[in-house]
Amino acid sequence: MNEQQEKLRHSLSHVLMQALENLYRAVPGVGPAIEEGFYHDFDSKIKITDKDFKKIKKEMKKIITRGFPIEKETMSIEEGMKLLKDKKYSYTLELAEGLKEQGETEITFYRQGDFINMCKGPHLNSTDEINVDAFTLTKIAGAYWKNDENNTMLTRIYGVGFETKEELENYKEMIKEAEKRDHRKLGKELDLFTFSELVGSGLPLFTPKGTLIRDLIIEKIHGLQEDFGYQRVDIPHITKSDLYKTSGHWEKFGDELFKVKGQGDTEFVMKPMNCPHHTQIFASKQTSYRDLPVRYTEATKVYRDEQAGELIGLSRVRSITQDDGHVFCAPDQIEQEIKNIISIIRGFYKSLDMFKEGDYWVSLSVRDPQTPDKYLGEEKLWNEAESILEKIAKDEKLPYKRIEGEAAFYGPKLDFMFKDALGRERQLATAQLDFIMPNRFKLEYTDKDGEKKTPVMIHRAIAGSLERFMAIMIEHFAGAFPFWLSPVQIKIIPIADVHREYAKEIFGELKKRNFRIELDNSDDSFGKKVRKAKTEKIPYFLVIGDKEVEEKKVTVESRDEENLGQMTIENFVEKLEKETK
Amino acid sequence: MNEQQEKLRHSLSHVLMQALENLYRAVPGVGPAIEEGFYHDFDSKIKITDKDFKKIKKEMKKIITRGFPIEKETMSIEEGMKLLKDKKYSYTLELAEGLKEQGETEITFYRQGDFINMCKGPHLNSTDEINVDAFTLTKIAGAYWKNDENNTMLTRIYGVGFETKEELENYKEMIKEAEKRDHRKLGKELDLFTFSELVGSGLPLFTPKGTLIRDLIIEKIHGLQEDFGYQRVDIPHITKSDLYKTSGHWEKFGDELFKVKGQGDTEFVMKPMNCPHHTQIFASKQTSYRDLPVRYTEATKVYRDEQAGELIGLSRVRSITQDDGHVFCAPDQIEQEIKNIISIIRGFYKSLDMFKEGDYWVSLSVRDPQTPDKYLGEEKLWNEAESILEKIAKDEKLPYKRIEGEAAFYGPKLDFMFKDALGRERQLATAQLDFIMPNRFKLEYTDKDGEKKTPVMIHRAIAGSLERFMAIMIEHFAGAFPFWLSPVQIKIIPIADVHREYAKEIFGELKKRNFRIELDNSDDSFGKKVRKAKTEKIPYFLVIGDKEVEEKKVTVESRDEENLGQMTIENFVEKLEKETK
Repeated sequence: MNEQQEKLRHSLSHVLMQALENLYRAVPGVGPAIEEGFYHDFDSKIKITDKDFKKIKKEMKKIITRGFPIEKETMSIEEGMKLLKDKKYSYTLELAEGLKEQGETEITFYRQGDFINMCKGPHLNSTDEINVDAFTLTKIAGAYWKNDENNTMLTRIYGVGFETKEELENYKEMIKEAEKRDHRKLGKELDLFTFSELVGSGLPLFTPKGTLIRDLIIEKIHGLQEDFGYQRVDIPHITKSDLYKTSGHWEKFGDELFKVKGQGDTEFVMKPMNCPHHTQIFASKQTSYRDLPVRYTEATKVYRDEQAGELIGLSRVRSITQDDGHVFCAPDQIEQEIKNIISIIRGFYKSLDMFKEGDYWVSLSVRDPQTPDKYLGEEKLWNEAESILEKIAKDEKLPYKRIEGEAAFYGPKLDFMFKDALGRERQLATAQLDFIMPNRFKLEYTDKDGEKKTPVMIHRAIAGSLERFMAIMIEHFAGAFPFWLSPVQIKIIPIADVHREYAKEIFGELKKRNFRIELDNSDDSFGKKVRKAKTEKIPYFLVIGDKEVEEKKVTVESRDEENLGQMTIENFVEKLEKETK
Repeated sequence: MNEQQEKLRHSLSHVLMQALENLYRAVPGVGPAIEEGFYHDFDSKIKITDKDFKKIKKEMKKIITRGFPIEKETMSIEEGMKLLKDKKYSYTLELAEGLKEQGETEITFYRQGDFINMCKGPHLNSTDEINVDAFTLTKIAGAYWKNDENNTMLTRIYGVGFETKEELENYKEMIKEAEKRDHRKLGKELDLFTFSELVGSGLPLFTPKGTLIRDLIIEKIHGLQEDFGYQRVDIPHITKSDLYKTSGHWEKFGDELFKVKGQGDTEFVMKPMNCPHHTQIFASKQTSYRDLPVRYTEATKVYRDEQAGELIGLSRVRSITQDDGHVFCAPDQIEQEIKNIISIIRGFYKSLDMFKEGDYWVSLSVRDPQTPDKYLGEEKLWNEAESILEKIAKDEKLPYKRIEGEAAFYGPKLDFMFKDALGRERQLATAQLDFIMPNRFKLEYTDKDGEKKTPVMIHRAIAGSLERFMAIMIEHFAGAFPFWLSPVQIKIIPIADVHREYAKEIFGELKKRNFRIELDNSDDSFGKKVRKAKTEKIPYFLVIGDKEVEEKKVTVESRDEENLGQMTIENFVEKLEKETK
């Protein structure tokens, strides 16, 4: 959001409040500009719903076209508080009192026509600078005053605002598309996952097709990383709290930790991450410099007690499957190991056609120089680590930006940001250096010189949380997954009963070659079968009719390329093999 | 244990007590015959350790050779209690008081020489019927009176007793072998798993090699069951307690359940089993008779809070990976589905060479006709189900026995019992019918006639708990796993530095063919390298020296067949491919 957009959206928020005051004598709460729009909280004796949006927009347009100058007024805090009291703006008055307590002596107001409220700005110069055709109201919701559930519940109206009508139309189009692609909707249509009232919210259950997608992602990543010596390990989902007290996560995670209670007094906890467990496998035997790097990997669930209100489909869950990996290495091995991880990330996102110039960038996440106390570990180590990561980013020709303050408290990292089909940016893969945890767990290896030394730890994720990743992929591909990721790759549709025999033969041929296929043997009409295959977004379906049986061919319909005509099964398989390479 | 053995062991227990009384004025607790031996609990002011076993055995032999007649005496309960009081047998007296409260009027004693104690028998006729060369004392431990930790801690001495010296020697040999094969010892030597003080007892962490074995087992089973239409699903490890209140497990599991507490009030619990979760996937969409059977499978961890004192290596853990499977089918599909499961079990145990006549039997576990109330569901359904299982056992020519009282409360089952290399019997695979849970969760499908009907559920496990299964396999194979299950299948050992180049070439050749290989590039001597390969129980190791490099061959040493001589790498691969088929 640039400054002009911020002024526009902030002014729209005031215009909305002015309209609400005119129409309903509503009393204002806060009303900021936000990404792509604005909102305003208010208290109203009259119940307002989205059915009233038309009326409110009409009033807003009236205010806009009247062209009120928007004027800033500075007052002494006493004068300002008196004004708010006279206007019975009790919420704003409470904010002013807060400012007074903080020692403020002056406050600013913005006035447009009859409407005046305390505000820091910035604003446009006049209401008619707002394009009446480039804004709309989108949503109405409840919102606690000061976001505290012990306070009064106010009403919040959201809107969006742009400079041109075209921008608004594009935005509406994007929202419509996003709704169509919503992974909760598509997840149900494609039968990928479900939730159960009895199991609880934020705890998804994956159906066979959804599980297959999960497994394909895990196997794809493992296939890539196996070449770099990653080995699978397996850990339990609970631990004594001692493990997290040693690692330091006990304090960090606080309320988000699920506590576990058995018959005895032992304090157990569900793991919110895997690194502490993995250190215990490393620590289980003597390690020589010759054994390094040691690379563990595991796709396993961690549990975090997110607030019920914040849970959204697969995007935000309580059972989070991490595609996790930890490397224990000597300091002079860091560079090669991070380069290997970048190789894996590149290979994986290329297989999704997402590793394309302009579609991704890399955050070189370093310390905030203003707050050195936030970070643990020696200054010298940090400087070295940050330069190694920067050197690697350059060597690998990554489109990177140095982002200060984004480092973890234990070390700097490379975060990979990808754009999805609707242009939304998502942080997915990451490689993080860690100088702290190996020390806390007293990990060591015997170096060439016979000395005991502490290894460096690298945390890495390729897809991140599999649940969130699946949500993003479902929306990115609108359910039309690439061939390798499709739960069903090919569907065979016999036109009539007499074609079933040959269809079965074709099925056998393709099954032998390990493709994931379905044979539609239902009694549905041919048209319905085709419509079903299309809804399921299956990459290819093969139609089998008289001609196909006679000529020992199949008619190939492609999801992405439409009708490909008749061909022999050998030619079809050749085509697939060429593509998957 | 036959009756003669029971008499022998019970009498040995009395002889032991008599010796303890003679030597230490020890006061008796209980002293029964047990599998292969006996024990006696006692209270002694003098501290006794296994260093005293020699002296105690000497005293026992003296009592045996004296040839005391062992005589039964029946007394009125008052008379008996007076005798016990006079002898200051306070523990036995407490038992007699209990009998009196239960209304007993007479009790029996057994006397041998000076020693007399209350006892139901049976016993030998004379102490010299005991073979002095065929018994020994094995272990000393603490034992709470009446097994209650609020009571006095007594001392318990265990012993074994046989009719012949040869049997005792065989037993000792078996114990020695069992100790050598102990999975806790081998697990460490072969680096398969570890425990951490910080994580807690009963919560194993699997190293790369142990994880590989787990994965190979899971994949082997899945490969077999995939042909029968089993599909993987994925569920979270926690649930609201509502799920188990509906299924009925809430009460059944009681204290063994791990309770989970988040920030909110919701009562969560760690899953002690998977079936209730799987019902929720089945329930997530409409099912027609055409969709049946639905077959879900998942290798996933369940959690049960076993008592800390009962945890043993991998045999008894708190995090239990179940190789689980659930079939939802129509009643007329039960037979075929159970036959499929038997096919999978047969295929799996054949791959371990354990499905051999005499090495396994099947328990047809049916109701106990004496306690019909223990079982839920209609009489008619049960009868049918029991006959279906019996018919299948006959059709499949399984060596089965009908075992009454071993059915689950929800239905009858087939339990597969296998003998391990030391002749110990283990219950591993199972197929269980369940008429109850589908009802409790109101599962349904639409039948041909348009009516809603309740499916039958089949629970099946092939390996059972993977942890326990691994413990059994490690001990059965003494760590020398079959080729397909070996974490490392082939090791390449270059004799000297000059042979490393060719060794690397061979490594590449075998790697390409997807064998699991290791190249020993250490600076160890050739002898040490060979010893290491042998300790690791790797099926084959290839020696590379001058002659091998010159003739482009390898010298193959087999773990099971010794030296196989020189051959080309092609011939070696051919041999392996023939074997694995």
